[in-house]
Amino acid sequence: MSDPELTHLRVDGSAHMVDVGSKSETQRRAVAQAVLVTRADVVDAVLTGDLPKGEAIGTARIAGIMAAKQTASLIPLCHPLPLTRITVDIVGSVDRLTVTATVATRAVTGVEMEALTAASVAALTLYDMIKAVDKTAVITDIRVLEKQGGKSGDWRAEA
Amino acid sequence: MSDPELTHLRVDGSAHMVDVGSKSETQRRAVAQAVLVTRADVVDAVLTGDLPKGEAIGTARIAGIMAAKQTASLIPLCHPLPLTRITVDIVGSVDRLTVTATVATRAVTGVEMEALTAASVAALTLYDMIKAVDKTAVITDIRVLEKQGGKSGDWRAEA
Amino acid sequence: MSDPELTHLRVDGSAHMVDVGSKSETQRRAVAQAVLVTRADVVDAVLTGDLPKGEAIGTARIAGIMAAKQTASLIPLCHPLPLTRITVDIVGSVDRLTVTATVATRAVTGVEMEALTAASVAALTLYDMIKAVDKTAVITDIRVLEKQGGKSGDWRAEA
Amino acid sequence: MSDPELTHLRVDGSAHMVDVGSKSETQRRAVAQAVLVTRADVVDAVLTGDLPKGEAIGTARIAGIMAAKQTASLIPLCHPLPLTRITVDIVGSVDRLTVTATVATRAVTGVEMEALTAASVAALTLYDMIKAVDKTAVITDIRVLEKQGGKSGDWRAEA
Amino acid sequence: MSDPELTHLRVDGSAHMVDVGSKSETQRRAVAQAVLVTRADVVDAVLTGDLPKGEAIGTARIAGIMAAKQTASLIPLCHPLPLTRITVDIVGSVDRLTVTATVATRAVTGVEMEALTAASVAALTLYDMIKAVDKTAVITDIRVLEKQGGKSGDWRAEA
Amino acid sequence: MSDPELTHLRVDGSAHMVDVGSKSETQRRAVAQAVLVTRADVVDAVLTGDLPKGEAIGTARIAGIMAAKQTASLIPLCHPLPLTRITVDIVGSVDRLTVTATVATRAVTGVEMEALTAASVAALTLYDMIKAVDKTAVITDIRVLEKQGGKSGDWRAEA
Repeated sequence: MSDPELTHLRVDGSAHMVDVGSKSETQRRAVAQAVLVTRADVVDAVLTGDLPKGEAIGTARIAGIMAAKQTASLIPLCHPLPLTRITVDIVGSVDRLTVTATVATRAVTGVEMEALTAASVAALTLYDMIKAVDKTAVITDIRVLEKQGGKSGDWRAEA
Repeated sequence: MSDPELTHLRVDGSAHMVDVGSKSETQRRAVAQAVLVTRADVVDAVLTGDLPKGEAIGTARIAGIMAAKQTASLIPLCHPLPLTRITVDIVGSVDRLTVTATVATRAVTGVEMEALTAASVAALTLYDMIKAVDKTAVITDIRVLEKQGGKSGDWRAEA
Repeated sequence: MSDPELTHLRVDGSAHMVDVGSKSETQRRAVAQAVLVTRADVVDAVLTGDLPKGEAIGTARIAGIMAAKQTASLIPLCHPLPLTRITVDIVGSVDRLTVTATVATRAVTGVEMEALTAASVAALTLYDMIKAVDKTAVITDIRVLEKQGGKSGDWRAEA
Repeated sequence: MSDPELTHLRVDGSAHMVDVGSKSETQRRAVAQAVLVTRADVVDAVLTGDLPKGEAIGTARIAGIMAAKQTASLIPLCHPLPLTRITVDIVGSVDRLTVTATVATRAVTGVEMEALTAASVAALTLYDMIKAVDKTAVITDIRVLEKQGGKSGDWRAEA
Repeated sequence: MSDPELTHLRVDGSAHMVDVGSKSETQRRAVAQAVLVTRADVVDAVLTGDLPKGEAIGTARIAGIMAAKQTASLIPLCHPLPLTRITVDIVGSVDRLTVTATVATRAVTGVEMEALTAASVAALTLYDMIKAVDKTAVITDIRVLEKQGGKSGDWRAEA
Repeated sequence: MSDPELTHLRVDGSAHMVDVGSKSETQRRAVAQAVLVTRADVVDAVLTGDLPKGEAIGTARIAGIMAAKQTASLIPLCHPLPLTRITVDIVGSVDRLTVTATVATRAVTGVEMEALTAASVAALTLYDMIKAVDKTAVITDIRVLEKQGGKSGDWRAEA
């Protein structure tokens, strides 16, 4: 069986930003997640602690939203896209914080990378806030949960 | 037991970029990793495939190096630091690609976030190159492997 | 009477970049201003002084134009927009310099924030050039003067 | 009396980033403010509304902190500085929200522009969140409140 | 004969980002080049040297691709454009490395500046990698080779 | 004779940002140039034309100054440096505009790339302003004119 074709590489193996000029614009949406695994007491401190208005979650959310808009500056072969919606949700459960990012656009290519970037940077921002109290935290399970729109149609990850 | 203190939040719970003005500059170094889990045939295509000079690995490496320099723009409460060294290594093993990033500085605060950002963005760049052939790939096990310098001294993650 | 609804916050109070995917593209334009209040001799030095080609005004103008293009990177919940026109005008009158920025686009959402950002950054750039000679200068009266296009129609501030 | 000298312009009137290479590093700090004037019910909606955890204030705060780090990219003749502290405080009073930004560094030049940029962008972010409910809001009274460090010594604005 | 009209300047000589709001979108493409002139042994080291997978060429290529996406942030009066394709090719010949960049968009204005920026930054990146071994290298012959689309039609530089 | 060593590549050929952590800070300065070759009437239009205050030169100058500060974001393997001075001079002569950029820092590595980037982007900005009247303009002779400071000492290009 031949190797799978990596579309970001040309026949000679060199990288390029692929030509999407002839693709038609459609509504596209992607949902991605990232999970920060730490300790239960740390999750508690992030979510509420003793504080009436702790901004840890809000800070991570804004970082994720702003990062989604920087995706084409961070990922070399991504196309710049006019994002029409970005939401970042963060929920805690025992020893972990799960970030879910939803990104939409009306464009010629999909927004999985934007959703993944938003989720990853939100999780890194949470990590930054807890690293002084837990050196051993791990960010895990970064993946696409679902995507809509485009030629390949709708898709949803298995649970 | 009281909740652990999140230093990026002030007494009233609001976020700030903490004052490091009175800390002294020392040599600091951090090593972090991120792992992209996919299929063995995809790893093979990334690493070499049939191509004499496939640039997939090099592209991800450069993305990671450039992202390290953007850390303070991405992570809201990170201090801007004059990075003195960035290396990104990527090795494949069966069904996974492991990114290891090493960052150094001579500064008043550490570079764990820079190393984590480099590793994460390199892994996201690899994901971008394989997503057309594997929708179910996952980035996992993003964590700090070791750090040197600063008041808290040297530290190495357990294997 | 109920509180006014802040559309950038969701029902649970969390921030998001609102979904504009179903809005239709129209020509949109916004005009905004910012005023730097200083001393008459400082205004004179900025506008001409003894110099045949002082670049103070031009520098502030370019800073404003470039800042308009960074609006979505600066204001967390702004949508990235394909700006089609940016002009920045600066006029002096006795003890003040008035910046007027006009921004246009063909997009699904308006450009007030882009015009305000252009005017603000141009005024900050003027401030930067005079701060050594006037510590007490003030930037004031930053507001939208008029807007055209979009569902809410045309609007002009009262004089 | 001769015109005041604008140090950012050279003898022929052209702009430059002035040479600070021979100045010595000192601890420097600046405090600046910006005031958003709107309606009392809008201030109430921003500060709490009916929401248990509205993120309007936190979002503006993070925007201000991140903008301080972009000052040298926005203001053409500003030197890049290694900021060691950024705090942004926002308080409401009847019909206005007052942003106060404090920035510190250990560097060869001051941080007034960084504090002003943080305060301005935080105020613009608040404006963005209320513009749908108050087209006539105004940002006003952007100015330096105090500065410490450097050759010109400490300074505090009159009340 | 009157001077040629510089469209980026208004009647009073001030700069602006010209209004392209009434122009219609078309497919546009531009090809530009930049040439780095050095020594034959340096070209050899860049292209292969003794190394099985030297990344000098790939690094310059990625730098060029990423720079094309930053054009509107670098060139003050350029419009932000949704680039649909970027390729950067680098070939060596005796004592020189020739970079050729191709950029496409579907937009209201052309992409010559994007292609020129990609070629220039790729050449600067090559320069960065060889500067330790050749202080006297020169980047030369940066120009547009061809352009398609738009009102002025197709155009190709004479050989 | 062996190939010259490219310090930005490691033994296995992979790129990295080299470790400069053990180098000592010194005052460093570099001067670089770029030349835009066009027609005499175009040079005349840029320099003065019939306009009392044409901003073409000032716009290019500011673009160059701002680009110098973005060097580490554009050139992948460049270290971020605290620039202490940037000047950009532009002079016309018959059919060409010569940009000369001077950059200084107090740092562990040199600023040739910053000076070259400033000169190149200023020249590209001039190109942008004349491209509508001269499709065949060329940017040429981008090179370092002199450098001071650092281990390799002072150096000046031959005339």
